[in-house]
Amino acid sequence: MSTFATFNPPPRLLMGPGPINADPRVLRAMSAQLIGQFDPAMTQAMNDTMALYRAVFATVNEATFLIDGTARAGIEAALVSLIEPGDTVLIPVFGRFGHLLREIAERCDATVEICEVPWGQVVDPAMVEEAIRRTRPKLVATVQGDTSTTMCQPLADLGRLCREQDVLLYADVTASLGGNTFEADAWHVDAVSAGLQKCLAGPSGSAPVTFSPRAVEVITRRKSIEAGLLADGETTAATRIRSNYFDVAMLLDYWGERRLNHHTEATSMLYAARECARIIVEDGLDETIERHRLHGEAMLAGVLGLGLAVFGDVSHKMNNVVGVHIPEGVDGDRARGELLEQFGIEIGTSFGPLHGKIWRIGTMGYNARTDAVLTTLAALEQVLRRNGHPTPQGGGIDAALEVYGSTAS
Amino acid sequence: MSTFATFNPPPRLLMGPGPINADPRVLRAMSAQLIGQFDPAMTQAMNDTMALYRAVFATVNEATFLIDGTARAGIEAALVSLIEPGDTVLIPVFGRFGHLLREIAERCDATVEICEVPWGQVVDPAMVEEAIRRTRPKLVATVQGDTSTTMCQPLADLGRLCREQDVLLYADVTASLGGNTFEADAWHVDAVSAGLQKCLAGPSGSAPVTFSPRAVEVITRRKSIEAGLLADGETTAATRIRSNYFDVAMLLDYWGERRLNHHTEATSMLYAARECARIIVEDGLDETIERHRLHGEAMLAGVLGLGLAVFGDVSHKMNNVVGVHIPEGVDGDRARGELLEQFGIEIGTSFGPLHGKIWRIGTMGYNARTDAVLTTLAALEQVLRRNGHPTPQGGGIDAALEVYGSTAS
Repeated sequence: MSTFATFNPPPRLLMGPGPINADPRVLRAMSAQLIGQFDPAMTQAMNDTMALYRAVFATVNEATFLIDGTARAGIEAALVSLIEPGDTVLIPVFGRFGHLLREIAERCDATVEICEVPWGQVVDPAMVEEAIRRTRPKLVATVQGDTSTTMCQPLADLGRLCREQDVLLYADVTASLGGNTFEADAWHVDAVSAGLQKCLAGPSGSAPVTFSPRAVEVITRRKSIEAGLLADGETTAATRIRSNYFDVAMLLDYWGERRLNHHTEATSMLYAARECARIIVEDGLDETIERHRLHGEAMLAGVLGLGLAVFGDVSHKMNNVVGVHIPEGVDGDRARGELLEQFGIEIGTSFGPLHGKIWRIGTMGYNARTDAVLTTLAALEQVLRRNGHPTPQGGGIDAALEVYGSTAS
Repeated sequence: MSTFATFNPPPRLLMGPGPINADPRVLRAMSAQLIGQFDPAMTQAMNDTMALYRAVFATVNEATFLIDGTARAGIEAALVSLIEPGDTVLIPVFGRFGHLLREIAERCDATVEICEVPWGQVVDPAMVEEAIRRTRPKLVATVQGDTSTTMCQPLADLGRLCREQDVLLYADVTASLGGNTFEADAWHVDAVSAGLQKCLAGPSGSAPVTFSPRAVEVITRRKSIEAGLLADGETTAATRIRSNYFDVAMLLDYWGERRLNHHTEATSMLYAARECARIIVEDGLDETIERHRLHGEAMLAGVLGLGLAVFGDVSHKMNNVVGVHIPEGVDGDRARGELLEQFGIEIGTSFGPLHGKIWRIGTMGYNARTDAVLTTLAALEQVLRRNGHPTPQGGGIDAALEVYGSTAS
């Protein structure tokens, strides 16, 4: 076959709902040479990574480590390890990713119960409480921030009532972690999974997870028993974790002191994950969330200053992404295409009921920065104008700069 | 918590059974900035990667792409997508990774049949043929190269007889691909998975896979049907693929022209995987295999020249790894530790029945190089001497150099 050139990606400012541009420090961390899987320097890097993510998740859980895959791999590892066929799982659904949790739980042969609200709202804890009393689930599984709607589900009340009712709580915090307050221990969240490609400023491909001692107990009870150790007629099939790759009980023996060989750790992604958390701990977790709040507020003010309408219940919006109604008469995909081709700036389209109606604009991770916000607003003004929707000149920029404390020009 | 320093891995020459040092070109490819998931440049990079791996797998299969996880993720994706509960799967076992296939197939609730030979041998196709006739499997699943024993299973006969018997053939080629001849189409292998961290000279964390049209047909028949489309009482539960993350039917819609959103592609690992294959295609696949043959032969000659005994049926050894009996009186782990601490060179220990008896020395990917072979042999000579096992001075070096065509000094 003909040979290919080295891939040289075009310069892009990624202001969609993620993935976003990686922090250059993360890219540099990934360019380090590999070392062996059980090299003392490698196991130390794994231990460092566990400690760093305990800080990021606000937990003391020993069982804090990485799943070698994308954020979706972290979700599946948590659910397939916790759910036994026939278990009842209650899922609050307020966007696309609630449906994903439902889909994965169904493949685990759970009996799935749903609390659903329209896109753009969050779920009232009273609704979840009623459903818990009615359905007696083993597990409540929810996302914190659902990028499909930009909403951020409050979790403290959910955690409290799950603990009172002796129900496990899982949360997917991929879209929200690092950009919005999340406290695994204080909120009683028993299982959590994330990804690097949103507020953590890394590439997709590694999924930090944490499990409370309660969750670990449920999972390790399902540990595989080797065939030779079973009594006549005894079987473990009913409860055995169905996946080897996502078997959290085995992964705990790999990341833990026993260091039992499992997969070959994805070394470069470990380097990336470690650096993502290292930067947050160095900058301070509270300071990182505050940075997302500030730039998210500036972007929100900016799109309102351009006269655009914002989607959903803004009081429950994630800091790091805003949904914007595509103005009447503007072809959303054409405008997005022009932003990308002419300015090198990517903003997001939407899924399902919001497709063609809403753009999603992110300010997260490395791109939660003043210059990224202002450049995006300036370009958006021009693209809207050329697509037949003139806006007040500089209306977005002035509004954003006011949030940053500058006097309007 | 206290802050951590940037991770700075120590310099290591990784001469074990993998992972090995990544080609610096692959590390550079990974340091490129991210782009959006549906950016035209991104989908082009995905299409390039599919084309490049078709060349590496020697196939015209349209269904050639990456699983976002380690080599083990590729195995599980293939097996969970092909195997329905109750299917019979026949597994030739000649080392640790055959047992892994068995374990994963069991978790898929397959009826697993085994053809087992002692470690250090390969499986006679006649034995597989007899077992196929007796057990009538849907699938034969085997590894090509099993690093636990260094053996390379011949696959051409297996492929022919599986095709004759209308049985699907899956092969895990993680350890062998790029260093030993493999021809997916010519050998009738219907499903194949690999990893980057061996002869492909990349980091662990991406699993190239390919599926024949026959395999794709079996998999797409299991495509999930949404609840609303089922007739009353109808169910898809019996055949639905149990994993969302590893659902190859869905992944084909993501990598194919429909570009249906699934996971967020692990962009940096895509860059790595593309570059690994690009280098092989640039250098030539045959030339790459020949390079592995040459340096593998030099290492084999070298360890024999040091008076060490080699493990297993050398006529079926993979080019890229050799098993060496740890000499009587030498503490294998202590000697390995000295090689690592004093010389920065890593060689491999062994698993299961070979633990404490065999070292495994690799010559693969970026480390299939003359200087890597000679440096390892020179250091090994010194470590053996200081561990009470003197060898002929320069015996390893002279034997290796003879393979390279130099006159012994």
